[in-house]
Parts: sequence; structure tokens; C-alpha cells
Amino acid sequence: MSEAEGTAVDDTPDGSAEVEAVVEGIQGRDRRALAKAITLIESRRGDRAEVGQEVLERVMPLTGGSIRLGVSGIPGVGKSTLIDALGKLLLDRGQRVAVLAVDPSSTVSGGSILGDKSRMPHLAADERAFIRPSPTAANLGGVARRTREAILLAEAAGYDVVLVETVGVGQSEVEVAQMVDFFALLLLPGSGDELQGLKKGIVELADVIVIHKADGDLADQARRTANDYRAALRYLGASGTAREVEVLTASAHEGEGIEELWSLVQERWEKDRTSGALDERRRAQQRQWFRRLVEEKVMDEFLSRAGVASRFESLESEVAAGRKTAGGAADELVAATRSN
Amino acid sequence: MSEAEGTAVDDTPDGSAEVEAVVEGIQGRDRRALAKAITLIESRRGDRAEVGQEVLERVMPLTGGSIRLGVSGIPGVGKSTLIDALGKLLLDRGQRVAVLAVDPSSTVSGGSILGDKSRMPHLAADERAFIRPSPTAANLGGVARRTREAILLAEAAGYDVVLVETVGVGQSEVEVAQMVDFFALLLLPGSGDELQGLKKGIVELADVIVIHKADGDLADQARRTANDYRAALRYLGASGTAREVEVLTASAHEGEGIEELWSLVQERWEKDRTSGALDERRRAQQRQWFRRLVEEKVMDEFLSRAGVASRFESLESEVAAGRKTAGGAADELVAATRSN
Repeated sequence: MSEAEGTAVDDTPDGSAEVEAVVEGIQGRDRRALAKAITLIESRRGDRAEVGQEVLERVMPLTGGSIRLGVSGIPGVGKSTLIDALGKLLLDRGQRVAVLAVDPSSTVSGGSILGDKSRMPHLAADERAFIRPSPTAANLGGVARRTREAILLAEAAGYDVVLVETVGVGQSEVEVAQMVDFFALLLLPGSGDELQGLKKGIVELADVIVIHKADGDLADQARRTANDYRAALRYLGASGTAREVEVLTASAHEGEGIEELWSLVQERWEKDRTSGALDERRRAQQRQWFRRLVEEKVMDEFLSRAGVASRFESLESEVAAGRKTAGGAADELVAATRSN
Repeated sequence: MSEAEGTAVDDTPDGSAEVEAVVEGIQGRDRRALAKAITLIESRRGDRAEVGQEVLERVMPLTGGSIRLGVSGIPGVGKSTLIDALGKLLLDRGQRVAVLAVDPSSTVSGGSILGDKSRMPHLAADERAFIRPSPTAANLGGVARRTREAILLAEAAGYDVVLVETVGVGQSEVEVAQMVDFFALLLLPGSGDELQGLKKGIVELADVIVIHKADGDLADQARRTANDYRAALRYLGASGTAREVEVLTASAHEGEGIEELWSLVQERWEKDRTSGALDERRRAQQRQWFRRLVEEKVMDEFLSRAGVASRFESLESEVAAGRKTAGGAADELVAATRSN
């Protein structure tokens, strides 16, 4: 975000005045301060990233107040258009909206059409909205960590709704589902997976399925598709869970179904907040995320010890080839390291 | 297996004669030697378990030849009856059949109705069949490791088909799906998840869905259920994968559908073996399993260092309560350990 770069506070020697300034800006709901804080946590320079972490720790008491909604679907399903329409509705109701994007492919391509301001004209034109494209971290784990932290920063800056946009065809959906309160999957009118190109398991992540582009010639087909999904979902299991999956039709183009979608999300959110389910889910997400980060770090450290990575690889090959058992090889690797 | 206990070779001082005897027994396709080898790998006594591991390493070149089929479904769906009928068919065709069970609840209850010989009268009466109830390890990971190793031992002992029975309501299905070539999910005639009590995600693991007890009054309903599942599966995603999910109806009671089930499994297995897909899947399973075991061991070691486990817990609570970020807390934990 160019608007956040090159400000004078960058030049303070120990960063404490800089931290102070950014924290104050976030508390004052300054959009540029939020952009700057996100730029800091995304920085590949260790000292800059540390300043970002300090800012984040400082504003933690202000976090947790937003409705966190993931929005996913294959390219062409109209994610940006729907987010723009939903955002406009929320702005009209006086709510502040932040849009964050998670796109692991932006790492490869150097850019992402997710979180693209030109595709969200209403949000881009309104200063109560904040749009942030996907970070270009080295891997999905990095993108996910930065996005989780950006959610917290956006909450601290007073955004009432945080929409996390992602692309609907791979592992990034699992990541996003684990950082939001609800996960909306957008689908096209049509019949099943051939058309949708969805990966196995994605449908199961959804709390809400939206059959989008339900307008013109496709309106009838969209209703049929919605009914088909409702029927199909009854065969997916998950009995005994309180979270029913809802299937809606919508057309951002015609403004249809957007209010219904938001009513549903808001009602559920309020219900879950009152019952304690929201808090419980968020605590579980945090715990799980903490464990995973510790595991990753501990494994990284283990594999960085002298000779361990190469030994891991050669043992892995022997295991894959059926020459050693996985259990025996794992015992061998860990025992060899211990005696070092 | 009482038949394997108390043999004379137990008394050799260093175990090498014992290893030799058990290996020879397995090579000679002696059912008692197989039972004994499994008892050894399941042993909680370190020295006995080590003898088991030695046996396993020795027979590794003989492994990999069987068709590994997982059979899952809720209690009452008729898993044992179907396995007995399928086993009888295979025995009649001159194939040797092993049945292993994975039931994490047996750890709590001290017993399992899975792999129960009295429920598999044809298999129990035939010396070319081998039935082994679930190991009672301390946790599911332990059960899974022991069952993977038992599959290898059964293959080394010349069993052509290894059936792994599991219970269909939780995490054990994921474990079993990762250790077999194909995963069959048995369901009752009826409509969707209310009746089946399935956990979300279980249906997605299946390569073959069998609507069981398709006899008498339920025959028509079973056909309708099969059609409903076929329709529902089209909405589940997984386009672009080569593995189509088949839906069959069967009645072990009337001997209907058992041959069809086996033809399907066998055809797919041959096709995948010829194309290299089988080998690839098994290599991927082994690699994944090896990585997981190493991760578990490395984490166990990390958490066993002085003060780490308690620090992990207190940081986790702070993260769950939103007082610290997961990223910051993970950095803190690992950094503190490093300076020790």
C-alpha cells in the first residue's frame, strides 16, 4: 500500500516512537495507520517485522469485535462483485468493512486479482472501507499467518466486518475456514462438480453456499442448483453438529439475495455469540493455530541441525520404496539426532 | 492371540534365535508365527517390541503384495457379516484372507467387537483365514502404527487380501483410509445423515459406498438410497481426480452384491497397479506416515524438555484468550527453548 510508505516515523532509531505512532493511528481508526501496520507485519526485513509484531501485541485488547466472513469460489463466480455489493449494503447501514485476500498463487505470479480495488468500485470509493490484496509471502503458511494478523489489526482499527476473499480450488480454503467465523462458498448455477471444478472437501467447509449469478436466463437454473445442493448436503454426514449448512441464491448484478445472505450471517453470529459458541470456536482456532506454528518451528529447527535434513530425505526414500518401515525409520532418525 | 503365546523360543537370551524362528514361520506362511509377530510389535515391553521390529525389518522384502481394503460403517450396518461373506468368496477362489481391526475405543473398553471371530463364522472356521482384533494401544496413533505394521506382516505371511475393519464414526476412518488401497463405506438404506450418524468428511474418504442390508423390505429403499448418494456425490467436488466413487447395493445375508463389490475392487486394483497409480499412492502414504511419525517424535521430545510443556500450556491459554497472538507466542516459546 503506497499510502503507508515513506512516512517520517520510519526514521526513529529504536522503533518505539514508530510503534507508538502506528498504535495511535490504529486506535484513531486511521486507514493509513492500518495499512502501514499490515505492511510492517508483512515485511521480510526482520527489524521491520518486529516493529509490526510490537504494534500487534499493543493493539490486541482492541481485537475480536468483528464478524469474520470467508468468501470463496472459483475464478469467474463473481466473488469481487458480490463482496462489493455486500460491502455497499454494510456501508449504507453505517458499518465499516475491511476486505483481505488470501491467494497463494500471488507468490508465484507476483500479483493477485483478489482484493483488486478496480473490481470493487463501491468499496474502493468509500473511505470507511479498507481493501488489502493478498500478501506475497514465500508460502501458504506465511500468507495465512499474515492474513490472521491483518484480521486482528483491522479489528483493532474498528472495522465491524472483515471479509476474507480466497480462490476456491485448493488448500487456501482450509486455511481461510480456520481463521473466520463463517465460510461462504459461491457456486455457479449448474450441475455438480464438473462445472465447478471444486476440490474434494471444499463443499464440506462451507457454512453457507451461495448459488451466484442467479439472474436472467440462469435464475431458474440457479434455483434448481440450490435445491440439488440442499438435497446433496443431506448425504454428507455431520449429524449432531449444530451448524446447518444454508443454501441461497444471489445475484450481485441485480442486488438479489445479498440482504438475505447478510441477515443469515448476522443472525448466526449473534446467536453464536450469545450461546458462547463463537468464543469457543475462536479459542479452538487460536489453539490449533498456535500448536501448528510451534510444530512448524520445532520441525524447522530439527531439520536444520547438521546432517538431519539429508538423513531425513534418504530415510524417506527408503520408506517410500518399502525397504524400511516408517516406524523403524522415524525411530532411527530421532535416535541418531539424540546421540549427536 | 493365545495360540501365539508361551512358545519355547521366547526364552532365548538375545532374541536372535527367536527372530529367526518367527521370520521362518512367516516365510512358511504359519498362522501362529504371524500371530506371534503381531503380538511382539504390539508389546508394551520395549525389548519384546524391539524383537517385533527386527522381525518386521527382516520380512520387508516380502511385503506389498496384497489388496488392502478398508471396510467402515456405523455399528449395526453389518460390517462383520459382509466381511465374512466377502472372505468366504475369496477363500472359495483359493485366496488367503486376513482381517485386522482398528478400534480406538477398545483402548477404553478393553475390548472390541471388531475383528470378533464369533461374528465371522466362515472365516473363523477356515485355516487359510487370519482374524486379529484391534490392538489396545494407548491412543489412535499407536493403534494406527500397529495396524500398518500388522498389514505388512500379513502380506509377508502370504495373505492375498487384507481387510481392515473400522467403526465409521470418527478419526479412525481417516487413519484407515491412509493405510489401505481402497476404502469401502457401508451405509444403511435410508435417507441421509440423520439415519447414518456419520461424521462430516467420512463420505469423502470412500472409494466405494455400499448400501448394505439391501434385502427383504429394504431392497427397494436401498436402491433409492444408492441413487440418492450417486446424485449427491456429483455435488461434492473432486473433479479432475481419476478416482470415481462407485455406489453399490449389497446384502451379505442373501449373498447379493458381494461378487460385484469384489469385482470392482479387484478391477480397480489391477488397473491402478498397471498404471503405476497404486505404487504412487502407497509411496505417498508411506512418506506422509513417516513425516507424521517424525513430527510426533520431535514434538514429544521438545515438550519433554524442562519447563517447555508448562510454558506451552500457559502460552496456549493466553493465545486462546486473545491476550497474545499465536505467532508471537510461538516465536516466544521456541526462542526461550533455544537459549536454554
